[in-house]
Amino acid sequence: MNTHAHDSIRAVQWTGTHLRLLDQRRLPHESVYLDLDTAPETAVAIRDMVVRGAPAIGVTAAYGVVLSARHAWTRDPAHWRDAMQADLDTLAASRPTAVNLFWALDHMRRLMDRLPDGVDPTAELLLEAERIHHDDIEGNRRMGELGAALIEPGKAVLTHCNTGSLATGGYGTALGVIRSAYAKGLIPHVFADETRPWLQGSRLTAWELVQDRIPVSLLCEGAAASLMREGRISWVIVGADRIAANGDAANKIGTYGLAILARHHGVRFMVVAPTTTIDMEAADGSAIPIEQRGTEEVLELAGKRVAADGAGAWNPAFDVTPAELIDAIVTEKGVVAQPDQENMALLMGAKT
Amino acid sequence: MNTHAHDSIRAVQWTGTHLRLLDQRRLPHESVYLDLDTAPETAVAIRDMVVRGAPAIGVTAAYGVVLSARHAWTRDPAHWRDAMQADLDTLAASRPTAVNLFWALDHMRRLMDRLPDGVDPTAELLLEAERIHHDDIEGNRRMGELGAALIEPGKAVLTHCNTGSLATGGYGTALGVIRSAYAKGLIPHVFADETRPWLQGSRLTAWELVQDRIPVSLLCEGAAASLMREGRISWVIVGADRIAANGDAANKIGTYGLAILARHHGVRFMVVAPTTTIDMEAADGSAIPIEQRGTEEVLELAGKRVAADGAGAWNPAFDVTPAELIDAIVTEKGVVAQPDQENMALLMGAKT
Repeated sequence: MNTHAHDSIRAVQWTGTHLRLLDQRRLPHESVYLDLDTAPETAVAIRDMVVRGAPAIGVTAAYGVVLSARHAWTRDPAHWRDAMQADLDTLAASRPTAVNLFWALDHMRRLMDRLPDGVDPTAELLLEAERIHHDDIEGNRRMGELGAALIEPGKAVLTHCNTGSLATGGYGTALGVIRSAYAKGLIPHVFADETRPWLQGSRLTAWELVQDRIPVSLLCEGAAASLMREGRISWVIVGADRIAANGDAANKIGTYGLAILARHHGVRFMVVAPTTTIDMEAADGSAIPIEQRGTEEVLELAGKRVAADGAGAWNPAFDVTPAELIDAIVTEKGVVAQPDQENMALLMGAKT
Repeated sequence: MNTHAHDSIRAVQWTGTHLRLLDQRRLPHESVYLDLDTAPETAVAIRDMVVRGAPAIGVTAAYGVVLSARHAWTRDPAHWRDAMQADLDTLAASRPTAVNLFWALDHMRRLMDRLPDGVDPTAELLLEAERIHHDDIEGNRRMGELGAALIEPGKAVLTHCNTGSLATGGYGTALGVIRSAYAKGLIPHVFADETRPWLQGSRLTAWELVQDRIPVSLLCEGAAASLMREGRISWVIVGADRIAANGDAANKIGTYGLAILARHHGVRFMVVAPTTTIDMEAADGSAIPIEQRGTEEVLELAGKRVAADGAGAWNPAFDVTPAELIDAIVTEKGVVAQPDQENMALLMGAKT
């Protein structure tokens, strides 16, 4: 059975001359693509969530390095590395939580160090960015298979935020597992949290699933506990923005609460992320910086103030789910059941 | 100390000739009042959430009976009770979960049965509706004192949905406790769930608290677990739409999940409701009907479709919190700690 049929969306593309991003702020009503020519433009696009999702941010940043190199070589071929420094800093400052961003920048920087002086580095860096992009998609397909293998047939699953083609190089992490599981006939139906405040579930995940003809029902986050109590789902399946060395996983705000509710109801909890999301420098979740975003995301709807003037808001963009609430972390290198420091190190040690 | 200072909003009023409702669908931007002249108009206003909140629905229904009686007496004075029957059925069908609606209709019907034939019943029924309204406010003030007495000074509290003046005859249930506790200097700050899909927290609770100059921060439901993990709140304080004989409590969707999260984090959980919300005919929560509302509440924002066409939604308006997750039920008759069938019966047996 071809489990890869459902995968036509590309949120991040290299056009041959530019970085092209699908503007996710305008989905699902409009499919508008932005063509970017510089690294600072790329950083703004990440910060303003034209593109979002940890793996997609990593791929985008890699292409941003290519744009930077092209400019640096044109401006000052003798010192192209120095000329790129400000761009690399700008890209690194775009969003703090997703570690894939920093992984991609480090990876490209190491290649930069190996490249010869006096030769335009653009082509080599582009090849590497495309390799990162390609590996991400291949990794997602592998995770789709590994994650689906954990699911017994029959019940629906619940997902949170968007972890599909839009959030990655393509296919998706958690949504990739769901695509694979649906293709194998293991799940009849998908429940998706609408995912306030940015509504990634309503705007992005539902859009992807409808295009794939996978039946999807949206629910408000507040309804998830009732859904579990009714016995309608077997797994909660989510992505991650950064996983610490002990298995603690940062992901979109609301994930941690779902993990507690899942444990309370005997529903299992799966985190799906490539090993580029694992930060072995972070001993546990307390070392992961949590981005606080503007209060207007909570106080306004579609640019119009909803709450009374004078009301404040608390708007952390991410939370940390402790490893002990996670039943399985699915990576392209394999599955870690009941993650802890020891079996995470084993997984990462196996990495070549 | 005057703990009743903050209480000027009246969402339900008798003008002398009409029932006047503050249209809560248009808050906080516009304060529009609707004057109603008939019981069917009143039922539509309840169904369409011009007025919402279990106690406010009860008070509104009582005034709806007055409007019905006035019409029936004008149309057919010899058979005014029969002429009211269709109106009473229409009012009873307006919303299924809040038991205060049925309590108010039963209460008014019992008075109708005692009234003499051949005399216009309107004035007597109006007196009784006003007494129900007055008793609701007095009960809320009493609950405010009883609930505040449970709170140690220092930490913030979290509330869900709207349980204030807008949801009751006046002052509020859970928000009444918060008003009283703030006036006594026990809590420095209030966190309020925005409460999807209808955003009662953002639109109504924040509006009430800002008017009372009580500091309030809104958060998305998904952030509540992080708030608790940070140790910033001591109590979750909510209302109820119906409480079963064993203490199981139906309330706005999202409440049950909060109770699980509170227990997980050692945060205490308080339900505040008048005894008119207690349904001793319902043995436990499974006997409480849960209203399912239209999918457009989830799929649209401000009348504009958000989710991709083809996506469905699951939109239960209420959930049931099991008694074992509730630390205290606060009523105007007293506080039930660790509610169960026995101590709930004791409370209700004490009712005269």
